[in-house]
Amino acid sequence: MKIIIDGYGGDNAPLEIVKGSVQAVNEIEDLTVIITGKQQELENCLKKLNYTGNKIEILNAETVISCDDENPAKLIKAMPDSSIVVALDALKQRNDIDAMISAGSTGAVLAGGILKLGRLKGVSRPGLAPLLPTKIDNKGVLLIDCGANADCKPINLCHFAMMGSVYYSSLYNVEKPKVALLNVGVEDAKGNMLIKETFKLLKTLPINFVGNIEARDCMSGDYDVLVADGFSGNLTLKSIEGTLLFVMDHLKNAIKSSTSSKIGYLFMKKSFNKLKEKMNYKQYGGSQFLGCKKPIFKAHGNSDAESILIVIKQAIKVAKNNVNDKIEEIVGSVQIEEN
Amino acid sequence: MKIIIDGYGGDNAPLEIVKGSVQAVNEIEDLTVIITGKQQELENCLKKLNYTGNKIEILNAETVISCDDENPAKLIKAMPDSSIVVALDALKQRNDIDAMISAGSTGAVLAGGILKLGRLKGVSRPGLAPLLPTKIDNKGVLLIDCGANADCKPINLCHFAMMGSVYYSSLYNVEKPKVALLNVGVEDAKGNMLIKETFKLLKTLPINFVGNIEARDCMSGDYDVLVADGFSGNLTLKSIEGTLLFVMDHLKNAIKSSTSSKIGYLFMKKSFNKLKEKMNYKQYGGSQFLGCKKPIFKAHGNSDAESILIVIKQAIKVAKNNVNDKIEEIVGSVQIEEN
Repeated sequence: MKIIIDGYGGDNAPLEIVKGSVQAVNEIEDLTVIITGKQQELENCLKKLNYTGNKIEILNAETVISCDDENPAKLIKAMPDSSIVVALDALKQRNDIDAMISAGSTGAVLAGGILKLGRLKGVSRPGLAPLLPTKIDNKGVLLIDCGANADCKPINLCHFAMMGSVYYSSLYNVEKPKVALLNVGVEDAKGNMLIKETFKLLKTLPINFVGNIEARDCMSGDYDVLVADGFSGNLTLKSIEGTLLFVMDHLKNAIKSSTSSKIGYLFMKKSFNKLKEKMNYKQYGGSQFLGCKKPIFKAHGNSDAESILIVIKQAIKVAKNNVNDKIEEIVGSVQIEEN
Repeated sequence: MKIIIDGYGGDNAPLEIVKGSVQAVNEIEDLTVIITGKQQELENCLKKLNYTGNKIEILNAETVISCDDENPAKLIKAMPDSSIVVALDALKQRNDIDAMISAGSTGAVLAGGILKLGRLKGVSRPGLAPLLPTKIDNKGVLLIDCGANADCKPINLCHFAMMGSVYYSSLYNVEKPKVALLNVGVEDAKGNMLIKETFKLLKTLPINFVGNIEARDCMSGDYDVLVADGFSGNLTLKSIEGTLLFVMDHLKNAIKSSTSSKIGYLFMKKSFNKLKEKMNYKQYGGSQFLGCKKPIFKAHGNSDAESILIVIKQAIKVAKNNVNDKIEEIVGSVQIEEN
């Protein structure tokens, strides 16, 4: 198994990326990690971490795509020597590389995935699919699409549903993941035109479609895959993230607000840490850009070594389970007729 | 000032509705509250609360629209003797009634508002506008539309922006509320087709339009009015509500999880209550259905007396400040040219 990782993506690059990679190769047999980025700096990181093995390779890349530009496709073309493009090019050209990971610009990962790798056979549009925490311990819920496609047609959402179902099934070893449509109400006839049309089509697909759900039930744990257009999915994801940060912020302030609270905190520290862990969506791994010809993962921008390790394990699972083959199979098995 | 209130809307009707109304008339001079619903039961509530004044009137209504049906417009027509329709009819017919409140079915309030009252002059579509908490104490942020219009055109969003600005200005005495467009990124060119077109138009309006914001910044307190189509706004609102409930739930479990935590909680109780208060979006009042010919407010379904009192005060503010006249003025002052 060989994974390539953008060594210069995210807030904690390159050291935490290298650290996570070293942990991965030390822990997992038969794994090689290729890191892209400035050769000398990456070698220094390995030295710092006392890594002397031969399961980490470095692929030199002189520049970095750092910002979420309005036109990431242009950047991908203009910066062939950037850590992310070098990784994507290698993923495309080399048969020995199984998956790619970047904690860098989401726009660049999405644009690069389409431009360099292209779509799986039969998939109308790839979709970005992060995992969110649920009320149930160690059970994530997949939300697809979260921003790759601002304007969608019903057929795109059908493909998101099938891809999400196959992917979730492999990740959690669930035979028939419960797929739901993100909507403004649970009744069959609810929603905007896109969602109403999608609802009818989803009922005909070879997946376990359980109907509409409201956004307030995203994290109930009663569903496995949530389907949305990229605009709505992005708003939902970021509303959840923003609210979690908002509450954690207020909780910190509440603790600091009095001596009595500070004392109370000492008694509650263990419980608080458990809560914090639960709220930490990084533990569920990165977001796969599902539907590209080879597995591409977007790790969180503030990924540390631990979260990089989690995404590497996720990528290995996807590659080993032949998720992409299964996607082509299910998508190819149906004819979707749009009105 | 005369406010009419649906006595049978919400989980705690009729007693909490009556209780909140009694508190309001006791506290506010020159206020009369008309409560609709079953005469005898409402009289019993007043007796129970020892209210013997003459500032509460009862308007008999024999039935209740209880559920969020798929076709609320049909229900409004079919149930003329329901507490919500009797209230809407009175609001429409009687010049002495200034505003209407219901904690009942959102669908019925929206359908009834349009069917019975109709739109203000020049307003293409009314929008549902709740207030959400922000990081700044006692400062809400207005989100419009939150579900009245699943499919929108740019002109609808322009009207939401202008109505929201006028309304917020009156509620918080802010001269130029900061109006932002809810989007998947802050750059000018981000978004789906609807949002991109709306962005261009918002820049030409006589409001303080400050650009795009991401959903994770909804509650930052840096913005006053957030504009969205009803589908996206609803997902955002419910994602936030769902996440707040999710966290509070986990917090409770964390407290209960060990003896040490329970002891800690005793020390932190005051701080926790402050946090709980902050998270309680009911304190910011109800959602106005902005753009109807007379002010209509949707109170939270689980409203208690305290929240009913808050919504009554909110309705009085809107009526006193002639918000509807100001909306007709600003909407009439511009010509919006759509492509």
